[in-house]
Amino acid sequence: MPDFVAEGAERLREFAESELAKLFAPGGPVPDDGIPPSLAEPLRYAILGGGKRLRPVLCLATCEALCGRAEPALPAALAVEVLHNYTLVHDDLKCMDDDALRRGRPSVHAKYGEAQAVLVGDALQAAAFRLALMAPPGCAEALALAAGPSGVVGGQWIDVTSAPPHDAARVRYVHERKTAALIVCACETGAICAGAPERGVAAARRYGAAFGLAFQIVDDLLDAEDPAKAGELSILRVASRDKARAAARAATTEAVAALDGFEPSVARDILRSLAEGQLRRSL
Amino acid sequence: MPDFVAEGAERLREFAESELAKLFAPGGPVPDDGIPPSLAEPLRYAILGGGKRLRPVLCLATCEALCGRAEPALPAALAVEVLHNYTLVHDDLKCMDDDALRRGRPSVHAKYGEAQAVLVGDALQAAAFRLALMAPPGCAEALALAAGPSGVVGGQWIDVTSAPPHDAARVRYVHERKTAALIVCACETGAICAGAPERGVAAARRYGAAFGLAFQIVDDLLDAEDPAKAGELSILRVASRDKARAAARAATTEAVAALDGFEPSVARDILRSLAEGQLRRSL
Repeated sequence: MPDFVAEGAERLREFAESELAKLFAPGGPVPDDGIPPSLAEPLRYAILGGGKRLRPVLCLATCEALCGRAEPALPAALAVEVLHNYTLVHDDLKCMDDDALRRGRPSVHAKYGEAQAVLVGDALQAAAFRLALMAPPGCAEALALAAGPSGVVGGQWIDVTSAPPHDAARVRYVHERKTAALIVCACETGAICAGAPERGVAAARRYGAAFGLAFQIVDDLLDAEDPAKAGELSILRVASRDKARAAARAATTEAVAALDGFEPSVARDILRSLAEGQLRRSL
Repeated sequence: MPDFVAEGAERLREFAESELAKLFAPGGPVPDDGIPPSLAEPLRYAILGGGKRLRPVLCLATCEALCGRAEPALPAALAVEVLHNYTLVHDDLKCMDDDALRRGRPSVHAKYGEAQAVLVGDALQAAAFRLALMAPPGCAEALALAAGPSGVVGGQWIDVTSAPPHDAARVRYVHERKTAALIVCACETGAICAGAPERGVAAARRYGAAFGLAFQIVDDLLDAEDPAKAGELSILRVASRDKARAAARAATTEAVAALDGFEPSVARDILRSLAEGQLRRSL
């Protein structure tokens, strides 16, 4: 990966990170309208725990690839990341995955309590919509569809409630909803914020859908080495490691092919290198 | 209350009820886009448990009072009610109020499990925004503000996390956020859907704010007779019953006065009788 691509991706990550740090803080881009300080603190804890910021970077890079500038996609990028973080807070709850740690720090419920973590997640979801509503028309709609019962929550529902034996259709359903839906939304809203024509928005969606699928397969491959995750719904319940790797490679190829209609640019190269780079996690 | 007012209120309640029954069902107004049937069922259970449908009736009546028709406010009315129902599902969780019953039936977590109830609430919040986005511009924004960390969740946060002794400012803060914010939103979005000018929207907000305050005070007075609720944050921690009743009466008078600028109509009378009727619950 040439340095200017890696530097460009890092620039977008830092942009997202620094703007996230302004949320729920006095003088930030969203008026706080009286958020209790004792709630603002865990909200900031929940969103500022690090992470690759993959979704906002995808949103910003898609926008930059389609209009030359990342800034127009900022509210959408933040909305998608805040929504993603609410799902992490709720996933970690005792009644869900019961994870006391998230990225090496106490998870929100471990630090603040169960009821508090429910409320922090609830507040972050509403805040995500507030941010999406600052983006052009279509962005909040895309987020509502991706976040709802036919998107992220629908996938999580099947993941939580279904018992083995799993079949390939169920694994695919969960991958598409729980993981890919929000990545599609990140790319789609990035394209909308760029003012891209329908063709560009559709290409961004195809890229996101294939990227999201490859991403979850790679996650499943990595999780297979974690004994704590044995028995979880995973592509490895229905395919060999070799077949899973081949499926991740095919989806990555599809993601990169979706970028064919984009004009050559550093941002397009960033999108390609993000897809290829995440695949290498599983080597 | 003359019969045509009671009948009008009942007509609006039945309208809201019958339209709520179409949600998360095949062929409903919101395309289901692949909601898992096993999730659609608890979503419907959560929203179809009865109740007065106060918030959608307020939304529809406000719209009818300002433009002569209730129908334009339907998506906003459903959005507010679906959002309200998500808060009830999460309030009932074991880590929150631990209520096994809601309106005489098992609460969602008691019937489907804790993790499931978290997800049902999460899905309902996203669905509420999807509905609000079908309403005119401004409605989803109002919902996001009312639902978020400076609204409903902010009020609930202080309610859950603060310990006695409570002072009047804290009680007022919780009442305004936890209860009144969404009632304000119902009336405000009703006015927006009517195409009302800013003056009409502001009057609807004033009505909702005063109504919401009176409503929560009356709830506090009624809850005082329930030993299970002793010690909860309530206006009775900072005022005598007589002072609380006087505050509810004053807020009701303020709500009715906010309707002065509305043209005389059955819908305006419905709004007045709803305010006066809810006050009588505490007599």
